[in-house]
Amino acid sequence: MGFTLAQAQVTVVGLGLMGGSLAAALSTTGACRRVVGVARRPSTLTMARSLRFIHWGTTELAAGVRQADIVILATPVQDILAKIKEIGPLLKPGCLLMDVGSTKLAICQAMEELPPHVQPIGGHPMCGKETSGLTMAEPDLYRDKVFVLTPLARTSAGAIALAKALVQAIGARPLLLDPARHDRAVAAISHLPYLLAASLVNAAAEFAQKDELVWKLAASGFRDTSRVAAGSIPMMMDILATNREPILTALRQAQRELDFLAQCLEKNDFEKLRGRLEEARQHRLEVFP
Amino acid sequence: MGFTLAQAQVTVVGLGLMGGSLAAALSTTGACRRVVGVARRPSTLTMARSLRFIHWGTTELAAGVRQADIVILATPVQDILAKIKEIGPLLKPGCLLMDVGSTKLAICQAMEELPPHVQPIGGHPMCGKETSGLTMAEPDLYRDKVFVLTPLARTSAGAIALAKALVQAIGARPLLLDPARHDRAVAAISHLPYLLAASLVNAAAEFAQKDELVWKLAASGFRDTSRVAAGSIPMMMDILATNREPILTALRQAQRELDFLAQCLEKNDFEKLRGRLEEARQHRLEVFP
Repeated sequence: MGFTLAQAQVTVVGLGLMGGSLAAALSTTGACRRVVGVARRPSTLTMARSLRFIHWGTTELAAGVRQADIVILATPVQDILAKIKEIGPLLKPGCLLMDVGSTKLAICQAMEELPPHVQPIGGHPMCGKETSGLTMAEPDLYRDKVFVLTPLARTSAGAIALAKALVQAIGARPLLLDPARHDRAVAAISHLPYLLAASLVNAAAEFAQKDELVWKLAASGFRDTSRVAAGSIPMMMDILATNREPILTALRQAQRELDFLAQCLEKNDFEKLRGRLEEARQHRLEVFP
Repeated sequence: MGFTLAQAQVTVVGLGLMGGSLAAALSTTGACRRVVGVARRPSTLTMARSLRFIHWGTTELAAGVRQADIVILATPVQDILAKIKEIGPLLKPGCLLMDVGSTKLAICQAMEELPPHVQPIGGHPMCGKETSGLTMAEPDLYRDKVFVLTPLARTSAGAIALAKALVQAIGARPLLLDPARHDRAVAAISHLPYLLAASLVNAAAEFAQKDELVWKLAASGFRDTSRVAAGSIPMMMDILATNREPILTALRQAQRELDFLAQCLEKNDFEKLRGRLEEARQHRLEVFP
C-alpha cells in the first residue's frame, strides 16, 4: 500500500457505538499514527476528543477524509451507501475505504463504482449492543469478536492485508467472506433474532392489554430473549431494506418451525415436540458450550 | 400456624437448581431451624451436605418429610403432581406444603385433594437459568426476584403469612395470584420466549445445513435470543403439558406478529414495518429501562 497501519491516519466517519468504539480501540492501542473523527454534531466531537478517542474531529466529511490513509464508514447502511457515492473524489490516491455496515452486498456493489484510485473493502464486526451512541462506546467492544471482511475483485492484496492488520489491532479476528454469503448468514443468525424478539415483545404487549400483570412476571428469560428488540430502529430499517430477500427466507423458516411446534402442541403429540426441542437444545449447546 | 419460620424444619424435595438454591438460601440466612433435603441420588445429598445447603438428607420421601413443618416440592411439574398424590398421609398436622413448579393451575387443583390436616399453597419464583442441577445452585438465586404464591380457598391466613415470610427470608418478593391468571401470564412472558428461542435455533440449524459458516457469525444477539432454548427438556415438557391452552394462545399471537412483519417486508411496506418495530422497542424499553 506504500504505508503501514502504524504510519496511517485513520478517519472514522460516524462516532456512534461502532465508530466510537473503533476510534477508541485505535487510539488506546496506538495502532495508527492519528485518528480523526467525522460526526454530524459538534458536541459528539467534543466528547470524543475529551475521551481521547480521536486526535481531531470535524463535521465536514471532505475536511475529515482529505489526509486520511484509511477511511472507515460507521453509519447506518443507507447512509454508508450515500457516502460511498460522494466520497471518491475526496480521497487520496491509495486510500483504503472500509465500512462497518451490517449488510454487505449492497455496499460492495456501490463500492464497485468508486474511482480506481480508491481501495475499497467491506467490513462487518460481529458485535454490538442494544444501546447506541458514543456514550456506550468502549475500546474493548471488538475484542475477540469475528470481524468479517468482504474484499472486491478490484481490492489489492496490500489493501486486504492492511484491513486485516487494522482488524487485528483492535483485537478482533478477521474472516474473509463473499458479501452475498455474509448477508444470507447474518439474515439467519442476526436479523431473524431481531424480528423474533420484536414479535415476542409485541405479543406480550398484546397480552398486557388484557392483564398488565404480565410485565411484573418478566424475568431473565424474557429479558434476554427480547433484548435486541430495543436496538436502533434506523439501523434495523436499513438492514431490512438492504437484505430483504435473505431475511424473508430466514423468517419463513422460523415460521415453519413455530408452526411445527404449535401443531405438535395442538395434536398433543408430545413425542414429536420433545424431539424438536431436544434438537434445538443440542444445537444451542454446541454453538455456546 | 402454631410455629414461626425460625422454629420450623423445612424439607426441600428435589435438590436441583431451584431446590438446591432454596435450601442454600435458607441455610445461609439461618431463617429456619433446620433444612432437610430429599433427592433421588445419594451423591446429590453428599454434595448438598458438604456445601452446607442442608443439615441432613435422605433419598426416602417419607423419612425426609416426617418431621417437617414446611415441605417444598422442587421437582418438574409432573413429578410434583405425582408427589402431591402420595404425600398427604406422610405429613404432620398443620404442615405447610408448598412447591416451586412453573405452572400453577394443575398443581393447585391437585392440592385441593390433600387431606385437611395439610396447609397447601402453590409457589413459583420468577427466576432460573438455562443450566440445571445442584452444581449451578446458589443462595442468591431468588434475591430481589418476584415469587408468586397461589393460595387455595382452604389455605389459612396463617399459612399464607408463613409462606410469605419464607419467600422474604430468601430475599424474594411475594406476589399473591390466582393460579389460572398466573398460568396465562407466564405462557406469554416465559413459555413463549422458550418456543421462539427453540424455533430460532432450529431455523439457524436448518440454514447451517447449507452453510456451516453461520455458527461462526453468531454473536451476542443470537446468544441472548436463543439462551433459554438450552433449558431443561423434562422441565419444559411438563410445562407444555400442563399449560397447553394458554401457551397455544400466546404462540398464535406471536405467529400473527411474525406474519405481520413478514407481510410488510414482502410488500415493501417499510412505513408499517417501522411502526411495529418502534412499538416493540418502546415496550421493551419500558419493561427494562
